[in-house]
Order: sequence, then C-alpha cells, then structure tokens
Amino acid sequence: MPVGTQATVKGVLQRDLSGELDAKIILANTYHLFLRPGHELIGALGGLHRFMAWDRAILTDSGGFQVFSLSDLRRISEEGVLFRSHLNGDAYLFTPESTVDVQLALGSDIMMMLDECPPWPVEHGPAAEAMRRTVRWARAGYSHYSRRKNETGTAQALFPIVQGSMFRDLRTECAAALSELDAPGYAIGGLSVGEPREMSMEVAEHTVPLLPRNRPRYAMGVGMPEELPQYVARGVDLMDCVLPSRNARNGCLFTSEGRVIIKQARYRDDPAPPDPACSCYTCRTHSRAYLRHLFQAGEMLFSMLATIHNLKHYLDTMRQMRQAILLGTFSALLDGVRSGRLE
Amino acid sequence: MPVGTQATVKGVLQRDLSGELDAKIILANTYHLFLRPGHELIGALGGLHRFMAWDRAILTDSGGFQVFSLSDLRRISEEGVLFRSHLNGDAYLFTPESTVDVQLALGSDIMMMLDECPPWPVEHGPAAEAMRRTVRWARAGYSHYSRRKNETGTAQALFPIVQGSMFRDLRTECAAALSELDAPGYAIGGLSVGEPREMSMEVAEHTVPLLPRNRPRYAMGVGMPEELPQYVARGVDLMDCVLPSRNARNGCLFTSEGRVIIKQARYRDDPAPPDPACSCYTCRTHSRAYLRHLFQAGEMLFSMLATIHNLKHYLDTMRQMRQAILLGTFSALLDGVRSGRLE
Repeated sequence: MPVGTQATVKGVLQRDLSGELDAKIILANTYHLFLRPGHELIGALGGLHRFMAWDRAILTDSGGFQVFSLSDLRRISEEGVLFRSHLNGDAYLFTPESTVDVQLALGSDIMMMLDECPPWPVEHGPAAEAMRRTVRWARAGYSHYSRRKNETGTAQALFPIVQGSMFRDLRTECAAALSELDAPGYAIGGLSVGEPREMSMEVAEHTVPLLPRNRPRYAMGVGMPEELPQYVARGVDLMDCVLPSRNARNGCLFTSEGRVIIKQARYRDDPAPPDPACSCYTCRTHSRAYLRHLFQAGEMLFSMLATIHNLKHYLDTMRQMRQAILLGTFSALLDGVRSGRLE
Repeated sequence: MPVGTQATVKGVLQRDLSGELDAKIILANTYHLFLRPGHELIGALGGLHRFMAWDRAILTDSGGFQVFSLSDLRRISEEGVLFRSHLNGDAYLFTPESTVDVQLALGSDIMMMLDECPPWPVEHGPAAEAMRRTVRWARAGYSHYSRRKNETGTAQALFPIVQGSMFRDLRTECAAALSELDAPGYAIGGLSVGEPREMSMEVAEHTVPLLPRNRPRYAMGVGMPEELPQYVARGVDLMDCVLPSRNARNGCLFTSEGRVIIKQARYRDDPAPPDPACSCYTCRTHSRAYLRHLFQAGEMLFSMLATIHNLKHYLDTMRQMRQAILLGTFSALLDGVRSGRLE
C-alpha cells in the first residue's frame, strides 16, 4: 500500500496513482487526519474517498503508532491514551471506541484497532503489559464497532493488531486472544520500531501461522524491496511502507539492478533511464542525468518522478508475486530473489 | 510561456504540460542552466529538448536579467558582464558572443541577446548608457550569431531586447537601432523591475509600434492575468511570467471569479472546485476544502494542483484571445475585460 498519510501520497496526482501506478489501495493516517483537517470535516464532506477524490480502497491506521512516535506527553491508562498534538500542543484522548468512531467518520474500507506499540528494545514485563492492554482495547473496540455496525450496516472492516514485541510467547498469546474476535483481517504491529530487520522477519514468521488462514494478514510498516518476497513467502498479504516514497524524495531509486543514489557523480551525464527494465513514466521519459540535475537543483519534479518510479517498482514486485502465486511458480521466483535476480 | 527556469516547470510533469495544459512553448533560463548542470553537459546529451524530454518550443532567456538580479559582484564592461555564481561564488564572464554560444549549445528555438537591464528607478544618463551598450552588444552578438548560422545552418532564432527604462526617447532610439538587425522577433525588456504596473504598460504601448509589424513581439516578465489582454491589445504576442506558478505555490489561485487565497477559513469546508468555470484536472477533480487542507498541511500535492490550475487559467486566457482575434471579436472581448467580466 502506498502511504498517503495526510490524504495524499506525497508528490503523486490521484490520477497517476490509479492510472500510471494502478494502486488498488492506499493507507491514510487517522492520527494526522483527526488533528488536521479533522474527521468531522471530512465526514461532513462525504468521507475520505470523496474528500481526496480516490474511489479505490483506503486503509486507515488507528493512530496508535503515531501517538507513540510523534506526540508529546502521552499518558496511557486503561481507558486509552492521552496525548498532545505535535502541531499545536492541544490535548486529546484516543480510546478504543473513539478511534473506531473517527475511522467510521472517515469512511475507510479497512479500519485499524487502537494498539499500544512499545519501541524496541523493551523488557518482557512491560511488553506483556502493553500486549494485554492491546488485547483488552481490541475487545472493547470490537464490541463498540459491532454495535455501530448493527446500527448503520457499514461495510467498513476492522482489523485488530497483534503486539508482543520480539517475544514469541507474547505474540502467541496475543494472536490467540485476537483470533477469538473472528475479525475479517489481522495485522502484525510492532515491526520497524528500531529492531534489526531479521528480527522483524522472525516475528512475522512466528506470528502468521497463529492467525486464521482464510483472513488477510497485514505486516505493518515493512519493508525494503528485497524483503517483500520474504514476507509474502511467510504468508503476509498486505504491507505498507514509507520507504518507496520517502527514499524517492531523498534521492534513492529502487531498481531491478539495485539502488541508484542519484546524487552520485557517475550519473551526471548518464543518458540511461533510472531502471532500463521498468515501464513507469519516469523510466519511459527521463534520463538519470536529468533526474540528477533536478535533484541537485532541489526541484520538486525530482520528488514527483522518483516517487512514481519507486512506487511502480514496489507495486510491480507485488504484481509479479501475485502472478507467480496464481501460476504456481512462486517458489521459483523466491529462489530467484535469494540468488539476487530479483532485488 | 510557462516558466521552466531550471529545465522544469516547477511541480508539473512534462506529460501534463503538453497534454493537460497544451503549452506550445516554455521558457528556460540560460544563466541557471549555464551554472547547473552546464550547457556543455546539456549539449553533449543532445540539447535541452532531449535533456528535459520536451519536444515543443523552448525560449531561453539570455541570462542578463538574472546576472543583474541574482549574482554577486557583477562588473559591466564593454566586453560583457563579469559576475559571481549565486550557487558557489565562482566568477564567470558573459559576453554577447558567449551567451549566443551557450544558447546554441542548449539548442533552444528562440535565443535572447545579452542585455543590460537596470532596476527601476534609474536616471536618464545611466539608462541611456545601459541602453546603448545593449545595442552595441546586440550588434556584436548578432554578427557572431550570423557567422555561426552560416557555419551550421541552425534554425534557432535570436531576438534582441529593447531597453531604455521608462524613458520614451531611449526606447525609441533603441527600437530603431535594433530594427536594423532585421531579427526574426523582438523583445521588450526592462519591465517588471520594480516600476508601477501602469508604467510597464505605457512602455509597451510606446515601444510596440516602433518594432517591425511582421515580427513577434515579446514583453518580458509580464503580467497579472487581467493585464494579458491589455498587452495583447497593444500588439504584444508573447509573454512570460512566474506569477501563475509562483503564486500557485504560495496559495493564490487565479480564477474566472477573481483570486482564491486558499488558506482563508471560508474555504475550510467548501466543496466547490477552485474555479467552477475551469476545465483543468484540478477543478475537475478537487474541492477548495481539499486544496486548503493540502496547503495547510504543507503537502507538495497542493503546489502541483495549484500550478496546473493557474497555468491553465493563463493559457486559456491566451487561447480565448487568439480565438477572438481570428473571429474578429477581440475588441468585444476587451470591453468584457474592462468591465470586469474576464479577470
């Protein structure tokens, strides 16, 4: 899922997101949209799809991760989390129920449960405490959601989030408890919070088999391009990551031949496209030399073109895997990845 | 002409510049491209059209204006202008001949002569001196260009620039001297350098009739949307201005109903497009409320969408006038402008 935190995938027109990139779903952020422009405003204007003119699927993150990473002075209680806005210092309380209500107002297709996401490293004790609170919040949020669903008949789905840091016993306990909710999909949270990347992969590998087989599993906040097949091989269906778009803006292009760090002098007069194997608008149209010039000159067009390319690279990787799974050739594709042929 | 200073119209894909906006010609800047990435590099990569993947017309400004407005420590002599780069302080000399050579390497369709462009206000004496040097430079540059043209058979055109500040006698003298060059087009420079806007219009009105009737006349650096018909009414064929794109980035949208300053609170929940009469992608797709959100959130997408709209507004205004001239209804259109119907 391309990340569209503030109801925009940075630097990409919605037309290109659906046409050029053919993204089927994007991620937006409850914390950010709650603070600005506000879920009530978005709701009054017909919901997030209409507000941002995007008629395909939207998943909204619950805001838990952002409360823990961006806001000041957060205080966690059984009721929820009290925090101050990173924009203006105003205090707000997010509860399992209120974050469901905010996301119902936004109208996202997939809503996420409020969770407590400790940074890494964390001791077993506090990790267990955070995980069990996450489970209690999930139960509370889920009954609230069920009541609202009965009232309104909404088709919006709600995914709980498995926590437990890097501790297998905690992940097992959490997955078992959340599975009882019989949710339409499950997320693995608490990844990409500072731990070594192999550790994130181990946690996913441990957790996926504990979740219902017939429900989509979403690994939150991963991963590097070469990791995508590894996650898929472990049974992950959905991922989101700021890397393709953020690295694009910082001058890093992901290509079939590895990373192109565009500021390097060797690209100064390079007439080749960023990735000769890529069919995106950027690669069809522009040279590395031109892209390097735009980057060095601080031109917005660089971010726009690099983002289009990187998102295309990620989405094409996912499409290749989907195709391989349908054709029964996924394990061959995976061997190719391991030997460095798909990177 | 949309302004593409550094070989990019800020925030617009080349595809949208030709498709969505149908711009026939853009302006790039010799001073900026000479400093970065360098005309030799661009020349070696096949010229500016190929470098930036733009197969329509390009006009390059000579760099005179930028030397006078951006660089440090400039020293003017009969030979040319010595200046320091605003990027790194390196010293360079621009001569009438060298700026022709730089533009020949860039391969622009219309090249501009090096001129001396004093700021406003300036006394009659120094203005006369600068104007006469501009004329001598134009003669020198033009003979250099003629030699190069004989050698290479280039189809690139070279326009001299009429200077003389706000003094009618100097403009008259300059226009007469430059007309002798029998150039394929003429520019009126020294506008938008700090003078009141009516004064720029008066200078254009005075100067246009002094130039060959059968050659395009280009008023450099103008104007506001409501001024375009006034310039055209005075016989101006070409204009360039950063206003549509710069004001877009600053949150000002030019519409058929006047200016929309998007940060204003009244647009907070406004579901209407920026300009209900406009057919651009932005107006077809997005609301003022969404654009205001993007602007307040500092999102790049705002600049992209606002630039598309403002450029469309300018180019549509020009297209309306061209149509009216062809139909013989331009004076009616002009009456409409004067009574505020076209703004």
